[in-house]
Amino acid sequence: MVTIKEVAEYAGVSVATVSRTLNNSGYVGKQSRIKVEEAVKTLGYYPNEIARSLYQKTSKMIGLLLPDISNPYFPLLAKGVEDYAQRNGYMVILGNVEDDEEKEEMYVKFFSQYNISGVLSAASGKKSQTYQVPFVLLDRALEEENYSIATDDQLGGELAAKAIIDAKGKQVVVMAGPGNVAGANDRLSGALSVLNDEGLSYQVFETHTYQVDKAEETAVELFESTRPFDSVIASNDVYALAVMKETIKRGHRIPEDIQIIGYDDMLFSRLMYPGLTTIAQPAYEVGYQGAKMLVDLIEKNSIEQKKVKLKPKLMMRDSLR
Amino acid sequence: MVTIKEVAEYAGVSVATVSRTLNNSGYVGKQSRIKVEEAVKTLGYYPNEIARSLYQKTSKMIGLLLPDISNPYFPLLAKGVEDYAQRNGYMVILGNVEDDEEKEEMYVKFFSQYNISGVLSAASGKKSQTYQVPFVLLDRALEEENYSIATDDQLGGELAAKAIIDAKGKQVVVMAGPGNVAGANDRLSGALSVLNDEGLSYQVFETHTYQVDKAEETAVELFESTRPFDSVIASNDVYALAVMKETIKRGHRIPEDIQIIGYDDMLFSRLMYPGLTTIAQPAYEVGYQGAKMLVDLIEKNSIEQKKVKLKPKLMMRDSLR
Repeated sequence: MVTIKEVAEYAGVSVATVSRTLNNSGYVGKQSRIKVEEAVKTLGYYPNEIARSLYQKTSKMIGLLLPDISNPYFPLLAKGVEDYAQRNGYMVILGNVEDDEEKEEMYVKFFSQYNISGVLSAASGKKSQTYQVPFVLLDRALEEENYSIATDDQLGGELAAKAIIDAKGKQVVVMAGPGNVAGANDRLSGALSVLNDEGLSYQVFETHTYQVDKAEETAVELFESTRPFDSVIASNDVYALAVMKETIKRGHRIPEDIQIIGYDDMLFSRLMYPGLTTIAQPAYEVGYQGAKMLVDLIEKNSIEQKKVKLKPKLMMRDSLR
Repeated sequence: MVTIKEVAEYAGVSVATVSRTLNNSGYVGKQSRIKVEEAVKTLGYYPNEIARSLYQKTSKMIGLLLPDISNPYFPLLAKGVEDYAQRNGYMVILGNVEDDEEKEEMYVKFFSQYNISGVLSAASGKKSQTYQVPFVLLDRALEEENYSIATDDQLGGELAAKAIIDAKGKQVVVMAGPGNVAGANDRLSGALSVLNDEGLSYQVFETHTYQVDKAEETAVELFESTRPFDSVIASNDVYALAVMKETIKRGHRIPEDIQIIGYDDMLFSRLMYPGLTTIAQPAYEVGYQGAKMLVDLIEKNSIEQKKVKLKPKLMMRDSLR
């Protein structure tokens, strides 16, 4: 790596002059400035961020905590975060915390040790007070006082239930996502409010996780622990896919015998045949907007809205009648 | 954040004593050591890694470059990397470089500025010489001299072609992945060697990217630019899914009229119905082993093998006859 000393030697000026030029502080003669700028360009010098970070007690690094990166919703969100961060000179530290308090604890420690300048979290565990830096929650709005970007999941739940009613569902199973996830509760309450208004018969089937590798066993359990049904409002697209597979394995037709609606709008939901009708969450947008909000907090820019809710959208495909 | 000075005050010893205790250097009396350890525990002190990093010119951060995090293969790989890193006290910086030289260039710069201690790359662009730190290639072995972990894609291509032959394919289309990706060439050469040995009729259909959002248009192009076929060896599972959808849209049956084999073994390939027969790549294992190799390089542990090839596996499902 090129050092500031080498830049000074190349430019034929003192280290102090290089430093003043780079930091735009104090007087530097016009000729010296030009020489320094040429030297910086020729040698490919960039200031050591670690040194700057130690001095300023902050870095241009942001932490991103995800509950399960193998759930295809989160890579889309991560892509949005990374795009915004990269364009604005920030690096993203990835933490896959798997709803595991200990893993999150470890990242809290890491982040403090490395002077991370802010944290984005889609994980459910820690409170924002744990982090002594700007903190934005993604899609899992935990506390009233937090900055957050989320999908309007109450509306999402309503849209799903309305779609089922429009498709003449009679006996509905609503899969309730993990209770510790705010968005999951909102979806449930949105769906139930519509079903109650219509006086429709329904059962709530509780799932305790969104973890991808639990999808298949959950689908089996769904069939074994509920009364007969003709419609399923699934927790998300991965779980919808598992329920579809179990439905067909048991000799039922989709959508004639059992109809299913998902939540998320994953790539595979669009690419599979028949296509999965689902509620599209703007995952990329949540990540992108979340990173923007966090960078605005770090850089002390004004923020119009502390809590942003993005609108989900019904994607009609072929899994409803 | 708790400072070393506060630890010293709490323990009733000098800062130098705290420093010697934490670094295990120089003499510290037994009583003082106990007091320091208690103070560290009570106050929740951890040394500032930024300061340590500046001094040692290295950090406990590793960079992970991915070509496209929205392709579901890479999150699995990232999960493997993160698991190993986290267990061994390293943080993972995520860079989604999208086969874009400029983005990778920017990360080379970032990584140097932050004294990153090593780089894992599944991206195709830069040469290892660009990084002045330990460097391990994941799945895209570019140069002979690199450390790398990859799937044995030649074998994978052979397995796919053999499966098609066993399923009585007569007119085969082989999708050739991007030519700048070593693994793609190996798959192609593996598949063609088997097809040639059997004297089977085939066409090669070239794709120029693995980017997920190009899958649907590529599937349309496949049907429009080739002679009639009854079997497709797809570039990967995402592309296989898109080809399946286009096949059904055009009124062909799977596998009766057209049979399809994928590559990767994504979650959705297992969950969809009918299931996609595919070649399983050990994505998580590639990430985990890659991170282990990188950490061994960083910590100067001995490494048994410079180039590791993991074996892919045929997953029989329902998309072949």
